Amino acid sequence: MPELRKDPVLGRWVIIAKERAKRPNDFKKGYEGPAEGECPFCEGKEHLTPHEIYAVRSAGYKKDGPRWEVRVIPSKAPFLKIEGELDRRADGIYDIMNGIGAHEIVIETPEHIANIADLSQDQITKILQTYIERINDLEKDKRFNYVLVFKNHGWLSGGGRVKHSKSQIIALPVNPKRVKEELVGANRYFEYHERCIFCDIVKQELASKERLVLDIDGFVAITPFASRFPFEMWILPKEHNCDFAKCNKDNLPHLADVLKKVLTKLKVGLNDPPYNFVIHTAPFKKPKPGYWKTINEDYHWHIEIIPRLTKVAGFEWGTGFYICPVPPENAAEFLRGVKA
Amino acid sequence: MPELRKDPVLGRWVIIAKERAKRPNDFKKGYEGPAEGECPFCEGKEHLTPHEIYAVRSAGYKKDGPRWEVRVIPSKAPFLKIEGELDRRADGIYDIMNGIGAHEIVIETPEHIANIADLSQDQITKILQTYIERINDLEKDKRFNYVLVFKNHGWLSGGGRVKHSKSQIIALPVNPKRVKEELVGANRYFEYHERCIFCDIVKQELASKERLVLDIDGFVAITPFASRFPFEMWILPKEHNCDFAKCNKDNLPHLADVLKKVLTKLKVGLNDPPYNFVIHTAPFKKPKPGYWKTINEDYHWHIEIIPRLTKVAGFEWGTGFYICPVPPENAAEFLRGVKA
Repeated sequence: MPELRKDPVLGRWVIIAKERAKRPNDFKKGYEGPAEGECPFCEGKEHLTPHEIYAVRSAGYKKDGPRWEVRVIPSKAPFLKIEGELDRRADGIYDIMNGIGAHEIVIETPEHIANIADLSQDQITKILQTYIERINDLEKDKRFNYVLVFKNHGWLSGGGRVKHSKSQIIALPVNPKRVKEELVGANRYFEYHERCIFCDIVKQELASKERLVLDIDGFVAITPFASRFPFEMWILPKEHNCDFAKCNKDNLPHLADVLKKVLTKLKVGLNDPPYNFVIHTAPFKKPKPGYWKTINEDYHWHIEIIPRLTKVAGFEWGTGFYICPVPPENAAEFLRGVKA
Repeated sequence: MPELRKDPVLGRWVIIAKERAKRPNDFKKGYEGPAEGECPFCEGKEHLTPHEIYAVRSAGYKKDGPRWEVRVIPSKAPFLKIEGELDRRADGIYDIMNGIGAHEIVIETPEHIANIADLSQDQITKILQTYIERINDLEKDKRFNYVLVFKNHGWLSGGGRVKHSKSQIIALPVNPKRVKEELVGANRYFEYHERCIFCDIVKQELASKERLVLDIDGFVAITPFASRFPFEMWILPKEHNCDFAKCNKDNLPHLADVLKKVLTKLKVGLNDPPYNFVIHTAPFKKPKPGYWKTINEDYHWHIEIIPRLTKVAGFEWGTGFYICPVPPENAAEFLRGVKA
């Protein structure tokens, strides 16, 4: 059973993935190149994966068979286990609980295509719908407080050796530190100004235009003012809404359009760099911890896209500061100029 | 002038390094291999570097000439500039100030040796003394609140192309988020328990021994309970002390011994992996912000060593959670067994 352990100084949780545990010799090798053999994520190879949890599939075709468009499977090497209870406990001065959670893989296309940017707007819309289906389903599990949807594209971003477009969904029994900090920050701003900080960001960026990459159909893509990474981008809905999974489904094709354009700009302009994206949305409104219930409304969901062009080094680990060698204004100007 | 910009949601500062600014084309290349030509950090090549700030040098030999043991120079491509005023100001809803600070390189040996682990205990003692000299000198500058000493070893850790053992010193006008969080966490624990949390960690680790790597001469090296990274290690003094630069200098040879042994274990046991280390010490006791003045005493300086064997991916960026595939107990057992 994996364990969730809390850093006693910082209150930061880590997952100690005991069953994935690598041996010291496993780290002596470098990158081993792409996976060999058949791709388990291609249509027709469904027998190579665990049983599917969910799929967008043509009517009349069977589970775990072909003729699907998007397919969700449990991770073969999950960070967290779906079965069991949390069993929160102490180990001396330390806090620990069982690594309960869900870890799912969203296979984004039946074809062997590596980058989501190369899928159609229609296909990306189906992927976004799939995220929402899964989040809403996982919300029913009373043990979970938060679901993170994220993507690792390319080896340096933590992407695996299978080069088939996919994203991951992790359901967590605790609110992650980073999301808590965003909620607290948004709440603090709201308490003072009686306005949403993300709405204010959207307004200022639309007015100044210097960090604006795209402005279409209710969504903006910007390079954030305090970018951590060169060509970092955020996609925000213009309309205030804390909950991605409760957003108006009619808007998903527009979001798919923006996501495709933004990721195509990265691919074309920067030679298909490794990147991560994460969807930041409000935690589930569970009765406990009640505090988050009241401040969820001050939040504003968004997607953060992080190209992995620089390396995080001692300074960043030691301070929580980041050094960004490309001013976001220059990055936005460059990205606006890339056709997508 | 570089800029310090604050993320309006998280309160996290970033450095927008305008003058280092890279162009989009600079990111299209991958690793370019080691630097070509003469190593500017070797003895006899002092004319290839900026003028030195400080050196440990045999008596009677001149500044910027040979016969030195440790040499400190300003960075040729500094993240922050030493000249000027902070000029804190608003840009609409955003906070911004000039990127004032110091960025120095500590050349750790006159010989062309890549890893500090391969230097003698005596040489490492001189390096530690140099850190202290520089921190105490930078403290005199009223604009600075914090000095971080850190090392990037190897390309994947953010190390540069010059393979000559060096570390870096950055003086900052603000307390970094990460250090603030540690101070607040240590203070909260002290308020509740009337004990230092780091002292309690040392006690529990010495009693249980399962995460203990070394215990010699007043210092322990442990794999932390909530390790973020495989084979992550912390070195802590057993005696409570918040300020590395004010520690008893008679103990520096012991610290050098522990640091050399721990880094040798990494090098030998894991095939010279890339790593970062950072020295975490209390901020300067400046009259402002006064809050930190009172809680500095609850802190306990330590060194964090982070081998870079895994990649930080979307999940970590999105949550602040970390996934560690090697339980720290297994890591400690392995490291104890490596001769150093």
